[in-house]
Amino acid sequence: MNYFTTVDETHLEAFRQVLGADFVLTTPENLAPYAHDETEDLHYLPSVVLKPGSTEQVSRVMEICSQYHLPVTPRGGGTGLSGGALPQHGGVLLSTERFNRILQIDERNLQVTTEPGVITEVLQDAVKERGLFYPPDPSSRGSCFIGGNIAENSGGPKAVKYGVVKDYVLNLEVVLPSGEVIWTGANVLKNSTGYNLTQLVVGSEGTLGIVTKIVLRLIPLPKNDLLMLVPFRSAENACAAVSAIFRAGYIPSALEFMERDALEWAVKYVDNSSVPIADDVQAHLLIEVDGNYPDLLMQEMEGIAGIVTEFDCGEILFADDSVQKASLWKLRRRVAEAVKANSVYKEEDTVVPRAELPVLLKGVKEIGARYGFHSVCYGHAGDGNLHVNIIKGHLTDEQWNGSLPKGIAEIFELVKSLGGTISGEHGIGLVQKPYMHIMFTDTSMHLMRQIKKAFDPTGILNPGKIFD
Amino acid sequence: MNYFTTVDETHLEAFRQVLGADFVLTTPENLAPYAHDETEDLHYLPSVVLKPGSTEQVSRVMEICSQYHLPVTPRGGGTGLSGGALPQHGGVLLSTERFNRILQIDERNLQVTTEPGVITEVLQDAVKERGLFYPPDPSSRGSCFIGGNIAENSGGPKAVKYGVVKDYVLNLEVVLPSGEVIWTGANVLKNSTGYNLTQLVVGSEGTLGIVTKIVLRLIPLPKNDLLMLVPFRSAENACAAVSAIFRAGYIPSALEFMERDALEWAVKYVDNSSVPIADDVQAHLLIEVDGNYPDLLMQEMEGIAGIVTEFDCGEILFADDSVQKASLWKLRRRVAEAVKANSVYKEEDTVVPRAELPVLLKGVKEIGARYGFHSVCYGHAGDGNLHVNIIKGHLTDEQWNGSLPKGIAEIFELVKSLGGTISGEHGIGLVQKPYMHIMFTDTSMHLMRQIKKAFDPTGILNPGKIFD
Repeated sequence: MNYFTTVDETHLEAFRQVLGADFVLTTPENLAPYAHDETEDLHYLPSVVLKPGSTEQVSRVMEICSQYHLPVTPRGGGTGLSGGALPQHGGVLLSTERFNRILQIDERNLQVTTEPGVITEVLQDAVKERGLFYPPDPSSRGSCFIGGNIAENSGGPKAVKYGVVKDYVLNLEVVLPSGEVIWTGANVLKNSTGYNLTQLVVGSEGTLGIVTKIVLRLIPLPKNDLLMLVPFRSAENACAAVSAIFRAGYIPSALEFMERDALEWAVKYVDNSSVPIADDVQAHLLIEVDGNYPDLLMQEMEGIAGIVTEFDCGEILFADDSVQKASLWKLRRRVAEAVKANSVYKEEDTVVPRAELPVLLKGVKEIGARYGFHSVCYGHAGDGNLHVNIIKGHLTDEQWNGSLPKGIAEIFELVKSLGGTISGEHGIGLVQKPYMHIMFTDTSMHLMRQIKKAFDPTGILNPGKIFD
Repeated sequence: MNYFTTVDETHLEAFRQVLGADFVLTTPENLAPYAHDETEDLHYLPSVVLKPGSTEQVSRVMEICSQYHLPVTPRGGGTGLSGGALPQHGGVLLSTERFNRILQIDERNLQVTTEPGVITEVLQDAVKERGLFYPPDPSSRGSCFIGGNIAENSGGPKAVKYGVVKDYVLNLEVVLPSGEVIWTGANVLKNSTGYNLTQLVVGSEGTLGIVTKIVLRLIPLPKNDLLMLVPFRSAENACAAVSAIFRAGYIPSALEFMERDALEWAVKYVDNSSVPIADDVQAHLLIEVDGNYPDLLMQEMEGIAGIVTEFDCGEILFADDSVQKASLWKLRRRVAEAVKANSVYKEEDTVVPRAELPVLLKGVKEIGARYGFHSVCYGHAGDGNLHVNIIKGHLTDEQWNGSLPKGIAEIFELVKSLGGTISGEHGIGLVQKPYMHIMFTDTSMHLMRQIKKAFDPTGILNPGKIFD
């Protein structure tokens, strides 16, 4: 157990000296927005919110926090789904919102150097203007920060063809808990120079250091894409079609799965009646291909359509134009919000080898039947990444807090037995901590704790996340 | 300084109990082949060579070595270029040569599970028979082991389009120095579950644990490729053409650079007279494109040919058939051997953002002129990865051992100033250790040492590699 110092006027004055009074927030109405993220209905109030504007300021803040043993929780856009940015121990919340500059788009080397507080979509649009592409696009891309994406190793629909955040991060400037500043690597595509500190920081959920500069690789922007929505009479068949598509040699740029409820709730939520859902439909696949040659894309779409037809699908909806494409993507991106608006829920971020998806889906439903919970499943099926939204609905608080965690553990045991893991892109944060032992032995957990100690010997940075 | 126990009869008997006498080698003629790898002319004799055949045996060997504080150097195919597999402190050499089974090719999930002692080309051929592709292909692929590739995070020509080893490793079974066995991750494409132990082990040069099982992702095998050899009158122009090709939106599946000497020596070495080299030619680019649509590939080749023409190139040689392609690739793959046959040499594995290649090449030549050494440069230009072979030629031993390291340090300082690093794919091992401080501050080096300590508290595993 780690006992932290309570933030007092001495500390606040030190922070004001470094940042200026405007960037040291302490009033309840200023603190309130930083007490929650998008994780369930959790709330933890920080003692103070700091808004540094430079690496140097972050470094000095960390020196002060080290000196006084104050807990520090770094925060990006606040869109996290595992509670990684929640100040569970109070203390200092360090917001990166002023780190909002794209520092350099290097068209010669297809790289971008950015600060962590840039909104992911803003970054994507900026490089797109130069004909370049940064693919990772979590559903929250309109409000999440690129720094948060790095903390969680985010994915999104495009990951199936283009990979996740870790596949684009070349180099990071990181402020350590001591206040020391390091660069983790170099701005190169290949690197065999010592341990991979870059990949250690990616996905470390703000527990090892505070990222203050980011170098990402970019790729040429594909010029065209095509999109189709395929209804299936059986959700397991939809999942089975997913791996058949890859086994036939196709690599779609997105391959999203939505159970009937997911799409239906989203249609209602965004008031979009353009997508009729037949009575016998149990699930949909949203399938995109992209590239530079429209004729080839059409061929690919036809090939994929031929495959899904073998899995008892209904009438395929081909998006005719960019308006219809945008409308279908909007539905997909709003599913999480739609589910949230419907009920209190818990979202599990399961991931398995993609051919195991039908087994996973069937298992989730069986476990749900035994524990009495309803689930709405959707996600990045091409990656084997299934978001299982467990709906509170009519469950009592006792059921919700008592037996449900056992049901979740059963889902995770199943995931593990299929070669998968308990988080594909949301992270462990606060809420998945109790399940880490399912994935990792004591030996592995000890290694992780020792790594944490190497970066953060006194445990002040984002305490209580990933492990206690 | 770490003082190790000398291997004696007690230890040998313990090893024989675990492995059987046949797999505990101690005679000088049995030890000799394990005293060197492909790094310069270095020799270090181990006290004993062990050949375990199972994870359990590796684990028991490590328990014994831990108990008695014996140094252990793991070794794959022995093709390393930085001395990572050399038993600098004597003691135990642990060969993975009996771990030579491909355990499962999972066509449903596009994955392969293999032991580390499988030769890379054998693995590639086995998955190719199923229409699958494992792209990383170091020049030594006919003799190197996949486990060694993971230790060094190897690359090779295909990395420019398909990435390096780290981009294919999903999960590793690792025996820790204590003898404990862990799996680093899961068999999935996305993973946000705790620290990325998988990527920490990749490229760690056998200093953190001994990899005993490997899960790799695969991709569908491209059906066609085209190859051309482009001569340039200026080596810097050849380098400049490289980034122009990418800026035009092309992503070749290989883009190799060879200075005149490199190709000329290779032609002589493999006695292949089919490639005439005009007198005014200073460098070549070997350019490959691959994909499933021959017409498109032809279009791409024409587009790329149009670009290189702007950089004052000579007559382009298009490979007509698979025989000519194989012949050109053979030349490229034998350059290193050809250089080695020509003179004692040191190979530096520089890597920079690709548009900086012309600056790097010019700088290498200037530094060479000042220190009086000749260099032959070639490498994976598409990745900005330039192998600088420094030829001993007429240099005295005094120059070779005295002033040359200062020249090398200058090259590495230049590399760093260009945003690059001192090893792209060969690793640090023994020979690049003195230059690590150029890339990393004391703070970063301290972090790496602490990580090493977390895995290997007593420092018995591959001592003296990466850092002292």
